[in-house]
Formats: sequence, C-alpha cells, structure tokens
Amino acid sequence: MKILIINGPNLNLLGHREPAIYGSDSMESCLRSLRERYPDTPIEYFQSNHEGAIIDEIHRCGYPEKSCDGIVLNAGAYTHTSLAIADAIAAVDVPVIEVHISNVASREPIRHTSLIGPVCRGVIAGFGLDSYRLAIEALKAL
Amino acid sequence: MKILIINGPNLNLLGHREPAIYGSDSMESCLRSLRERYPDTPIEYFQSNHEGAIIDEIHRCGYPEKSCDGIVLNAGAYTHTSLAIADAIAAVDVPVIEVHISNVASREPIRHTSLIGPVCRGVIAGFGLDSYRLAIEALKAL
Amino acid sequence: MKILIINGPNLNLLGHREPAIYGSDSMESCLRSLRERYPDTPIEYFQSNHEGAIIDEIHRCGYPEKSCDGIVLNAGAYTHTSLAIADAIAAVDVPVIEVHISNVASREPIRHTSLIGPVCRGVIAGFGLDSYRLAIEALKAL
Amino acid sequence: MKILIINGPNLNLLGHREPAIYGSDSMESCLRSLRERYPDTPIEYFQSNHEGAIIDEIHRCGYPEKSCDGIVLNAGAYTHTSLAIADAIAAVDVPVIEVHISNVASREPIRHTSLIGPVCRGVIAGFGLDSYRLAIEALKAL
Amino acid sequence: MKILIINGPNLNLLGHREPAIYGSDSMESCLRSLRERYPDTPIEYFQSNHEGAIIDEIHRCGYPEKSCDGIVLNAGAYTHTSLAIADAIAAVDVPVIEVHISNVASREPIRHTSLIGPVCRGVIAGFGLDSYRLAIEALKAL
Amino acid sequence: MKILIINGPNLNLLGHREPAIYGSDSMESCLRSLRERYPDTPIEYFQSNHEGAIIDEIHRCGYPEKSCDGIVLNAGAYTHTSLAIADAIAAVDVPVIEVHISNVASREPIRHTSLIGPVCRGVIAGFGLDSYRLAIEALKAL
Amino acid sequence: MKILIINGPNLNLLGHREPAIYGSDSMESCLRSLRERYPDTPIEYFQSNHEGAIIDEIHRCGYPEKSCDGIVLNAGAYTHTSLAIADAIAAVDVPVIEVHISNVASREPIRHTSLIGPVCRGVIAGFGLDSYRLAIEALKAL
Amino acid sequence: MKILIINGPNLNLLGHREPAIYGSDSMESCLRSLRERYPDTPIEYFQSNHEGAIIDEIHRCGYPEKSCDGIVLNAGAYTHTSLAIADAIAAVDVPVIEVHISNVASREPIRHTSLIGPVCRGVIAGFGLDSYRLAIEALKAL
Amino acid sequence: MKILIINGPNLNLLGHREPAIYGSDSMESCLRSLRERYPDTPIEYFQSNHEGAIIDEIHRCGYPEKSCDGIVLNAGAYTHTSLAIADAIAAVDVPVIEVHISNVASREPIRHTSLIGPVCRGVIAGFGLDSYRLAIEALKAL
Amino acid sequence: MKILIINGPNLNLLGHREPAIYGSDSMESCLRSLRERYPDTPIEYFQSNHEGAIIDEIHRCGYPEKSCDGIVLNAGAYTHTSLAIADAIAAVDVPVIEVHISNVASREPIRHTSLIGPVCRGVIAGFGLDSYRLAIEALKAL
Amino acid sequence: MKILIINGPNLNLLGHREPAIYGSDSMESCLRSLRERYPDTPIEYFQSNHEGAIIDEIHRCGYPEKSCDGIVLNAGAYTHTSLAIADAIAAVDVPVIEVHISNVASREPIRHTSLIGPVCRGVIAGFGLDSYRLAIEALKAL
Amino acid sequence: MKILIINGPNLNLLGHREPAIYGSDSMESCLRSLRERYPDTPIEYFQSNHEGAIIDEIHRCGYPEKSCDGIVLNAGAYTHTSLAIADAIAAVDVPVIEVHISNVASREPIRHTSLIGPVCRGVIAGFGLDSYRLAIEALKAL
Repeated sequence: MKILIINGPNLNLLGHREPAIYGSDSMESCLRSLRERYPDTPIEYFQSNHEGAIIDEIHRCGYPEKSCDGIVLNAGAYTHTSLAIADAIAAVDVPVIEVHISNVASREPIRHTSLIGPVCRGVIAGFGLDSYRLAIEALKAL
Repeated sequence: MKILIINGPNLNLLGHREPAIYGSDSMESCLRSLRERYPDTPIEYFQSNHEGAIIDEIHRCGYPEKSCDGIVLNAGAYTHTSLAIADAIAAVDVPVIEVHISNVASREPIRHTSLIGPVCRGVIAGFGLDSYRLAIEALKAL
Repeated sequence: MKILIINGPNLNLLGHREPAIYGSDSMESCLRSLRERYPDTPIEYFQSNHEGAIIDEIHRCGYPEKSCDGIVLNAGAYTHTSLAIADAIAAVDVPVIEVHISNVASREPIRHTSLIGPVCRGVIAGFGLDSYRLAIEALKAL
Repeated sequence: MKILIINGPNLNLLGHREPAIYGSDSMESCLRSLRERYPDTPIEYFQSNHEGAIIDEIHRCGYPEKSCDGIVLNAGAYTHTSLAIADAIAAVDVPVIEVHISNVASREPIRHTSLIGPVCRGVIAGFGLDSYRLAIEALKAL
Repeated sequence: MKILIINGPNLNLLGHREPAIYGSDSMESCLRSLRERYPDTPIEYFQSNHEGAIIDEIHRCGYPEKSCDGIVLNAGAYTHTSLAIADAIAAVDVPVIEVHISNVASREPIRHTSLIGPVCRGVIAGFGLDSYRLAIEALKAL
Repeated sequence: MKILIINGPNLNLLGHREPAIYGSDSMESCLRSLRERYPDTPIEYFQSNHEGAIIDEIHRCGYPEKSCDGIVLNAGAYTHTSLAIADAIAAVDVPVIEVHISNVASREPIRHTSLIGPVCRGVIAGFGLDSYRLAIEALKAL
Repeated sequence: MKILIINGPNLNLLGHREPAIYGSDSMESCLRSLRERYPDTPIEYFQSNHEGAIIDEIHRCGYPEKSCDGIVLNAGAYTHTSLAIADAIAAVDVPVIEVHISNVASREPIRHTSLIGPVCRGVIAGFGLDSYRLAIEALKAL
Repeated sequence: MKILIINGPNLNLLGHREPAIYGSDSMESCLRSLRERYPDTPIEYFQSNHEGAIIDEIHRCGYPEKSCDGIVLNAGAYTHTSLAIADAIAAVDVPVIEVHISNVASREPIRHTSLIGPVCRGVIAGFGLDSYRLAIEALKAL
Repeated sequence: MKILIINGPNLNLLGHREPAIYGSDSMESCLRSLRERYPDTPIEYFQSNHEGAIIDEIHRCGYPEKSCDGIVLNAGAYTHTSLAIADAIAAVDVPVIEVHISNVASREPIRHTSLIGPVCRGVIAGFGLDSYRLAIEALKAL
Repeated sequence: MKILIINGPNLNLLGHREPAIYGSDSMESCLRSLRERYPDTPIEYFQSNHEGAIIDEIHRCGYPEKSCDGIVLNAGAYTHTSLAIADAIAAVDVPVIEVHISNVASREPIRHTSLIGPVCRGVIAGFGLDSYRLAIEALKAL
Repeated sequence: MKILIINGPNLNLLGHREPAIYGSDSMESCLRSLRERYPDTPIEYFQSNHEGAIIDEIHRCGYPEKSCDGIVLNAGAYTHTSLAIADAIAAVDVPVIEVHISNVASREPIRHTSLIGPVCRGVIAGFGLDSYRLAIEALKAL
Repeated sequence: MKILIINGPNLNLLGHREPAIYGSDSMESCLRSLRERYPDTPIEYFQSNHEGAIIDEIHRCGYPEKSCDGIVLNAGAYTHTSLAIADAIAAVDVPVIEVHISNVASREPIRHTSLIGPVCRGVIAGFGLDSYRLAIEALKAL
C-alpha cells in the first residue's frame, strides 16, 4: 500500500506557526516517525500553498494510472473555501481522508463547514500531528 | 488506562438498522475485537436512547471520582440536537472523542453541525465500526 | 392487523391541557371509541414524556421481531426537535403515520417544521382526536 | 352534505405524470370509487392549472350563497406559492382540507412550506389517492 | 405558599462544574440558606438530567391537583432546545420563573434564545445562586 | 384625465370578506362615490382573480396606444408574489399607484414585502376604501 | 381638527438635500400651501434630528391631555431604526400616518422595512411633498 | 423535428418594452428569421401572460400524444416564481430549454434563482433574441 | 450603597401607556415604595427618551468619580437597538442590571435580542414594577 | 474572429471524470470537431487548475493589446468561488461567455450561484460538450 | 483648509474607557499634537453622545454655507446603527472620512457592518489615535 | 524600516482596468513617488494573481528570518474569499495593513466582508493610490 500525504496552505510553517493552535512539532519529524512506524508503507509527502497545485497533485494520483492507494489530505484553509479541490477528489478513484491538526469545531464558524467533507471517506480532526497517523491507520483498514 | 464507549440513540440496532449507511456488523462483535486487540485496556460499554441517561453516564466518569480515562462518544442524532450533553462533557475532566460510523458530512444538512464538537478533543467519522478503534488509538496517544 | 398509538410529551394531559387548542376530550375516551369502531384491530397505546422512551417503544415494534403492523405517532413537541426519533422511525420496518390534534401550520413557526415528517408515510393534522381515527383508516388502506 | 374536490396544476395528468411519485391511478377512477363509497354525499370535481380559476371556484362555494359544505383541496404546486388562494380560503365560510398525494415533507425544501396551511382546517398528505377519501372522512366528522 | 425548585441537566454538579462560570457553591448549601430565610415557605427540590423527567415533575404540580404555588425552573441547556418543557409549562396552571446562574446573554449565541421564555412569567439570570432567591422573592410578590 | 382602477384577487368579495380586516362597504358603492366626487374624471374599473388577466389589462393601457393616464392598483395577495405584474408595470408608460385597504405593515410578514413597490410611483395603504380616493388625488397631482 | 406634522432627521434640509431624491421645494412653502388649502385646520409643525425629541413631541400630543387630533409623521431614517418611536406611537391615543417623500420601496433594502409601520394607521409614500397633503386628507376622513 | 417556442408574461411587448434591457426587435421578426433559417423544422409559437395557460400548453405537447420534439421556454418572470410550471415540465417527456433574452445574472437578486432550471435540460441566457436560435441549435443536437 | 434607576424611552408614561402590557401603576408610586422599603439606600431616578442622555447619565456614574454603586437600567426599546448604551455600560466600572416590566420573551421577535445584555451583570424581566425591587435586591447581594 | 476557450479546474480530466455528470468525450475530440466546423475561426485552448493562471490568461487577451475577440469560459468550480476571476473579466474589454457542461441548476445549491455571471455576456449550460459550440455560435453573432 | 473632527458616543471617555481596546491616551493630547503638526490647518473638535447632535453638527458644516473642508468622523457605536447619520453625510457636500481607533474587523460581528461607510469617502481603522492623523493626511490629499 | 507592498489579483492592470473605479494612475508611478517621498525606507513590491504566490510571499517575510518590518497588502478580490491568506498573515510576526483603492463599503455586498481584516492591524480604504502612502505612514507610526 502506497500513501500520499498532502498538506495545504501554511502547513509548511508547522512548528513555527501559532504553536498554541498547531503545536511545536514540525512536519518533518512527524513524517520521520510515520515512516519508521510503517516501514512497509511508502509514504509520499506533498505540500503547497497553491490550490491549483493541490488539485494537480490529486489528479497525479489517478491519471494516467493510479499512483497511490490512499490520500491523507490536510487542506488547511482550503477545506472551507475550495470547491475545486472537492471536485478533484470526486474525480479520482482514490480514497481521501480529511485531516486536521486542531479541533476545527471549536474555532471560528467559517471553519465549521468543510466543502471537501462530502467527497472524502471520513474525517479525523483535533489530535495534533497524531491525526496523520490515525488517518494512515484508517486507510490501511478500509 | 480505562476507556468508556458511549453509544447514543438507535445504536442498539447496529447491524440491523439501515445497513447501507451503518453496515451489518453488530456492536457486540466490534467490542469483542476491540477487547482482544487491547487486552490491557479495560473497555466499558454503555448504550442508551435517553439523552438524560447519557448525561448521567458522562457524570459518573467524573464524580465523585474519575472512573475512566477517556470516553469514546457516538452520540448519534443527539450530536446535532443536545446542548445538554455538550454541557456534560464540558463539566467533566475526562477527554471525550466524538465518533461517527457514517461520514456525516455527506448526509443531510442537519447532520453537518455538531453541538458537542466544540467541547470534545477531536472527531473521527466515516470509517464504519473502525471509527471506534481509531478513537481508542487517539485516546491512548493523548 | 395490529396497531400501536404512541403519544409524546404532554399528551397525558389531554382534556385538561389548553382546551382551546387541544379540545376537552381525554385520550381514554378516544381509545375506547376507536376500539369499539375497529373490534378486529388490536390497538395498543403508549404515552411518554421521555424522548428516549418513545425511541425504545418504536424499536420494540421491530426487534427482535415485528410486534405491530403500523404506528400512529403524535410526537407532540418532539416532532419539531427530535432527530433521534426520526432515526428510530427510519430504523424500523413498520409504517409510521405522523398525527397532530391541532393544525400545527396555524401555530408558531417552530411548529411548521417536522423533523420526523421525511421518514413517515404521511401526516394527518388538525382534526382534533379524530386525527387518530383517520390515521388508522390510512394504515388499514396502505 | 355536499363536497367539492378541487385539484390544482398538473393534477389533470394523474396516472401519467411521474408515476414514481404520484402513482398510476387516474383521478377518474378515484372519483368513481369515492362516489360509490359515499352514495349519499354528492361529490363535485374541479381541476384547473390556473391559480385564478381555483380562486373563482372557491368563491363560487360561498357567494352569493354557500353551494357546498366542505372543500378537499389539492392545490399542487400552488400550495407553496399562492397567497391569493390562501386569501380565498380565508374569505369563504366553508371548511377546507389541504390534501397531498405524495409525502411533501420528504421532497424538496420548497414543498415543506404551505402558504394555505394556516387557513385550512387540517392537512392530509402522503397516502396516494387515498388521501382524498381520508379528507372526505375528516369533513364528514367535523 | 409552597414552592418547587426544578434544576435541569448538569446542575447536579454545581460547585464542581466549570466554577469560572457557575461558582463553587453547591445547590445543597443554597437550598439550606433559602429554607432558613423563608421558614414559612416549604421549598421542594427536584433535579434531573432527563427532559422527560422534568416534564413529569412539572405535570405533578398541576394534576390531579395543584401541589405547589410556583415553580423556579433552571432548565439548563434544555432552556434552549426543549419545546416539550415549554409545552408542559403552558399546560399547568402554576406560575413558572425562568432562572439562570450565569448571564446567558454574554455566552454563546445558542444560549441567547429561550424556548421556554414565552410561557414563563419572567426571567432572572446572571446572579449566581442568588438568582434562586430572587425568583422566590418574585413568586411571593406575584 | 382618465383613470383605471384594477383590483386583484379576492377583492370581488369586498364587503363580504373578512369585514374585520377589509370593512363592510362594497367596491360598487366606493366606485359610485368616487365618480360623483370626480365627475370630470372617467374612472374605469377592472377586477380579476387571474394574475395573467391583470397583466393583460395593464398592457391594454399602454398598447397599441395609451388608453388611460394613471392606474390605481390594489393587487391583493399578488402584491407579494407576482414579479410578472411588476414587469408589466415597468413595461408600460403609465404611472401606477400601489393601494391597500388594510395596513399591510401590521399583518403577517409575507405581506411586508411588495414585489410591485419598486416600479410603482408610490404607495397608499391602511385607509380602508378611502385609499382609492387618496390614490386618485395623488394621480391628479402628479 | 388640529393636526401636527413631525419631520425627522435631515428633513430640515429639504430643498437643499439630494434634490434628485427629495425634490427642490422647501418644507416652508409646503406648509404655507397646506395652511392655505385647509384654513380651518390648524397645522403645527415640528422638526428634529433627535430621536428622543420626536418621542417627546409625540408624547406631548397625548399627555396630560390630547393636544392634537392626528399626526403626520415623516420619521426619515428613524423609520427603519427606531423601535422607541414605534413604542411612543403605540403609547398615545392619536392616529399617526407614516409619510415619505420618496418611494422607499425603490431604494436600498434597509429602507424597505418600517419599524413604525405596524403601529401607524397607514402609510403614504412616493408623492414628493404632496405626500403630506394626502396624509392630511386621510386624517380628515378617518 | 418539431419545435415549440413558449414565451411567458410581458414578452408580447418585445420591441416596445424596456428596450435598454430587451432590445427593440419584435418577436415576429425573430420568428420569421428562425423559420427561414430552419425551413425543415416546423416552429410553433405560443405566448401568454397566464401561468395556467403556459402549463396547459406544455401539457398539450405530451398528452394524449407527443405533439412536438422540444420546447424553447422563456418563462419571463414566472421563471422565478412558478413551481407549477416546473412541475409541468417534469410531467412531460419533452426536452425543455430555459431561455432568457437578458443576462439575468446581472439583474436583481430575485432573478438569480430559477425554479424551472432544475427540470430543464439546460439554460441559454443573455444573447438577446439570438438566445432563441441558440436554443433551437441546442435542441437539434440533443 | 447608592443606587441609580435609569428608565429609557416612553417609560415616563408608565401607568398611562398600554396598561395591558405595562400595568397601571406609575413610576412615582413605585419609587416611593422602594425608598420606604430601603430607607438606608439612597435611590436616584433618571428618565429620558434620548439615547444620548442615557449615555451621559451612565457616564456621570463613573467620571470623574464613581457617584453610585449600582445601576438598575430599564432601557425600554433602546435595549434592542442601542449598541452605544452597551458601550457606555462597558466603559464604566459600575454594575448594571437590565430590567424589564413585561416579559419581553413573549412579545415580538425584535424584543428577544438585547444588545445591552452581554455587558450587564444580569437580567430581571416580567414582574411588572416589582422587577425594580428585585434588581435592587440583586445589586445589594452582589 | 479569434476565439479562446478557457477551461478551469478538473476539466483536464474530461472523459475520465464522473462520466455520469460530464459525459465520456474528451476535450481533445471536442476541440477537433469545433476547429473542423469553424475553419476560419482560430480557436485557442487553455486549461488550468490554478485560479491565478486563469486570471493571467484572461489578462493576456486584453493587454498590452487585444489578442482575441471572445472568450468561452468554463471556470468549473471557480465559477462559484472566484471573485478574482470575475474581476479579471470585468477588467478586459473582451466578451466572455460562461459555459457549463452539466446543468448546474440541478446540482448542489453551491453550484446555483455564479460569481462570474454578472460580468459575462451570457451563460450556456447543460448541453454537454455541445455547450462550447453554442457559445462560439453566440460569440460569432454578437 | 479647515477640518472638523467629530467623535461619537463614549469617545469622551477616551483614555479611561476599556484601555485594552482604546488605549490610554486622551483625545485632548491627541488634538494638541495634531494642531502642532498641522499649524496651518484649523482643526475644530466636536463630541457628543447624542445621535441627533452629531447630525446637527454635520449639517452645520454645509448650511447655510460650507463651514469646513472635510470631516473626520468617528461615529463610535452609531457607525453600526445610525442610518440617520449616513443620510446627513449624504446631504452635505463635504468629504467625510470614517475613522476607528480599534480594528473593528476583529471585534463582534455587529461591528463589521458600517451603515455610514457607503456615503463616506473612505475608512481608516485600527491605528489607535493615529487613525485621526491619517484621516487628516487623507483629507489634505483629496 | 523595510516595507513590502503586496498587490493581489488584477492589480497588475491598474491604470487600465475600470478607471471609473480604480483611477488611471499606474502602480509604477505610485511606487516611484512613494520611494521618492520615503528615501530611507526601502519599499519592495510584489504582485501576483495567484493566491498561493501571495501566501508564499507573506511567508518569505517571516521565515527563516524576518525580511521586512511591515506589509501593505491590497489583496484585491482575495480579501473577500481567501481564508488561506488570512492564515498566512496570522502565521507571521509582521504587521500587515489591509489596503483598498476604492471604497469597498460602497460596492457590492460581497466586498463588505473581509476575511483578512480580523488578522490585520488595521484597514485603509477608498483613497485611490494614496491609500498606499497612508498605510506606509501608519506602519511607520506603529
């Protein structure tokens, strides 16, 4: 099983950015520990602040042939504003798990609505960087 | 670590009820496999169709003394209508994980708003009965 | 054919409560005349002010085996606030008729929306206690 | 007792139109069986796709003298858009029963609001053509 | 004059629960001091986390005969979600005072709307446990 | 100056219909007294319960040539639901005064919004049948 | 019959202010012509930009004794924001006519809602300064 | 292939009515040029200001037998207010194209919502009378 | 302890104004009985129909020095429209109790929202003029 | 005449993506047949998943000089979320036609609102890939 | 160039009031430093808690003759509730700059909407008392 | 002090684009005059039509080290649709001033809400290109 983790806007600053909300661990150390824990599961990583680049990357998983078996997607703020990413998820035949580091339900109202939620398999939110591990666990058990 | 799983209304019918949405496995077999997987973690189970009984049970975890270390709560339809359960969660000092079997984000609009979300630690939704296992994983890693 | 009439909150006070809205006949005399009119149709009666108890009772009709052929449900105020009762109706394989004594469409706005309506077979409202008879007529003709 | 059944827009196509929603029986056979069942109750029938014609017909029941004792009104889509029909009902001194063939509560949101509901005596919806019979039963028992 | 104090969900935890909002006095000491202050006024107390049990208790005050002269009702979260409790208040012939410990107007928007307010005599909110004393004062002066 | 009074749905029942709201004078006596008061101003009268007929009549005032100098329009319930009548008013080059017998601002919310208001010259509402006279006064002074 | 005309905020600038909307006649010449036309009807005039002063003036008409027989009120922007003026109108026993120079229905949405409308006798809007004359005509005919 | 063009309210005034919005060509010359361009495609034309007459005409296309192969429908203002026309379109088995002369998206908000859109095959708006030709092109290519 | 009672718009008419809602006692007799009951507590009184004057008066309590220990504020209609009074309350360091004579929760929707509520200590509403006494009781117990 | 077709996000997957909604023809074959049909009209094609790239491309048409005579724009999901693309259209002096393959009016509510509609010339939606041809027809006839 | 600074409700307390939001400098020192910085620009100052007084003052700038060249207006809470001040601004021929000390966009939702914004030249908010200097800079550069 | 000016979508067309709204000066001449006026303050300039590129640029100011002391951000249409840019602003430790050339408060409703406002220091809007100078003034005075 091959897994792709996609991180959306501002998540390149993890560890630096608003640590009260997002914690102080970096994505690098998170990826390292995930790869150690799942040595037989290749885990690719992609981050972009560009909505279009995230769409391109989701497409790459499905065309011309399926290049991974599951996507863990933390779309950051695009979760709440990008219908285009939702359409990209609906267009590919790869299961996508919506992931959030913080508990979005306890933040501002605009973060309570996910445009991508209806086309994802499920959502995992609020567990800090552990949300990524749980999403991989979820993908492996589908 | 001691964990309590609370299931809300209509979840006593799991396996029988609308299998297209909720699958055909029963909660009993789910509990059995969870207890096998986590032999060192006592897992209590409580189900009720009564909002008040769920509140009573959440209280029981915190008073007069803490009787468990984490709650996995699938409040069913009360997720969307019970501010009183949310208040109960806020009142006790035990971490609560909101769990759903189906992907509520892809169902009717009334199921897109969680009244209990803001006072839970996080949410896991859409993975069938595997959502319960992921929630236990999340609790153990807090 | 076996029929169950379920009355929700405050309907135990029928005949006493706000007679300008609900009339001054009691449910007892209503049941008596229904049983006289339909001697071959056993009519069970259940009333509770507890949302959970109504859900339990709806379940009892379907599990472990079907114990009645149709439910006449006057959910009272829960009509407008209980998604959990709606889920219970969807979970059982018994036709349910939504019934109201008063014409809810001419009362306060909160009573214009029925959460249980979408999962019932139909609705009969506004005919005083005669609404129950009409619902039985409807069930017998399904 | 003399009863008038008024059918609104598109109900002239009953039996032909969207049979998944409206069934495949025609209004003619429905009227025939109603007249057989209630031989002592003259049942007039009026159908129009014109909002104004329905208003004219409702007026005809009340002026210059009352020409019927009750109206069974399936206003079709005008139920949800015609305040003018509601005003006509309020203007005449004849009880009107709102009737629907399908269970409007389970259809699109625009069909969940009835403009005529507040001025009718009651509503019967969701029982196919049997809704008309139940409405006559209701009228006879007023 | 006989008075009944009804406390709704989570108010059994008073003194323990979120002291920043609800203070650290228990209901027991509050009741003790009220009974001392009003020795000639029997004060009954009822608490439940069950919406239905609160409705039952309100009914008990009115049927078969009036068992108290006024109700002080802190319905907690049910204030904002229970139309059924509102109907119970409307059904009995006993004056009910809506009471809150915290100033609900300065909390989340969902707590700004009271479903029971329109059928209560008045509201007293924001004075900690002293709200109960003020409500008794209000009842005695009606 | 030639004036056309157009009355919309249910206004043929004036004098009979809901006298508490609309008074007990008939439109006939109103017209008679207007014609007496303004002997030099021919006053035509048109009433219909049909939205389309009202549109036809408004057109008739403007094409192929202008047949009157001003329209007094009481569109009744169509005031609030007919964008098509508003379009007709915008299409003709004749000033139109919106008129109401009752004070619509003190009635149900649906009557607080006028779809035709923005394309009329002005509105006169709440003065019983005297509203028509005031509208003629207004037209004569334009 | 004694009549009081009250003009609200910014109406002291009539003739100068936004002539495209309000015309270029001053209120002085309007009053002069009204007093000429109705020599037997004393017409008082009051203008203020202060909400409170308008309330004081409305009170003055009713206490300690009725000092006029009717009020013509152009409350300007306070029409849409002042519930306090509405309460003042409801408090006095003098008929009040709501008047506007422009056709408020064709302006911004905030001007489509009148807070004072429900407690006035009627409304006259859109006829320039002639609206005042029509209101006096209306008052004289009450 | 036989095509029916249906024009709704006020479109009989095309060429005269608000030329800034609707242009100054008449429907007659438009029809003439369409018939010249598509000599092998009989093009019928129907216009009415009556909602009911438009419904009747749509029915005529489907019952008792299909009398045309496609409908080009410019429902004018009824586009935004007539659920009954939408139901008529859903009832017949003939493809219907929604057409507008002006670009409704750039006009008032009420014109941004089409009640008939969901049951039409597609929409063509904003091209003046050329919208009709494009709709015929679209129908011929279905 | 020194207390200031501030009454807002139209409350100078108490006893005269809409007695069905506000009772027939005057504020004068209310003040007299309060001063008798609390001889050691100086009670000042201020009434104005001017929003600005109420703000000035609230300021006077706090600057240049605190001139009273608590304010009982019945802001009348300004309760629902004046953010400026709310800001004044937030600006001074004196506890303010929001008071209403009538049960605002049972009146029109605009009276269900209090702009000043979030910055007051608490609210007492619905007890007629006794609401003022209860507010003084509340202030004395803070 | 030179025409530019711009396709927005996910439209690079046409023919592969959700064929039930978008059909199974590819854009390549569509372009080929358009170029065959209009040999004298150069048709450029641009697709991007990047909102910014689409804006860049629209600019390229207008600056420093006009490089095409009309744009056929299927902005995909950006139709509903991109005010920036709307601003780009308003900024250039080239007519733009809004195009959709599916009938967006019959899909989810978020797709019923077009942010770009008000600044386009017109819209063509629902005709599969034939929508592009119709848009070219429309452009050629402007 | 002559400039008038108008401060609205509660701004007389600047330096004392909620220093966390509004800072601890007084308006007096702010004015002193502005007059020092712009010795050739007479700067008048006006503060009132009365909506009407602010309107009067704005009028004074324009009638009977223009008495200043620009207004810097911090309308405080009236920014969000006073349509009458907006009308006053529209009525005079003097440019007005809307100014706020705090960043209103980061405060409660009611402060996100400015009724006066549409008729002002521009807005400057969030820079403490420096907002006044920036507004003067802006006025001088118009 | 080093300042970065970031311009969002379509602002590369300044001087060409909709001059009635945005004026006819180009950004180049604006920058030139700013650099002349503030010779000691290096002013960098960045423009992009890409939301992601703007986020990248904001990040560049804060990581790995702070490369400027303040940002003047005219996010154009992204002001109203980009939560991701707001998150980027919140993530860096550099003060950001929101700037607009036009007075957005007087344009379409969608431009009245700023998603980035709550995380900026302040806003300056409506002064044409002078808004940039005022923002630099504001930054220098922080």
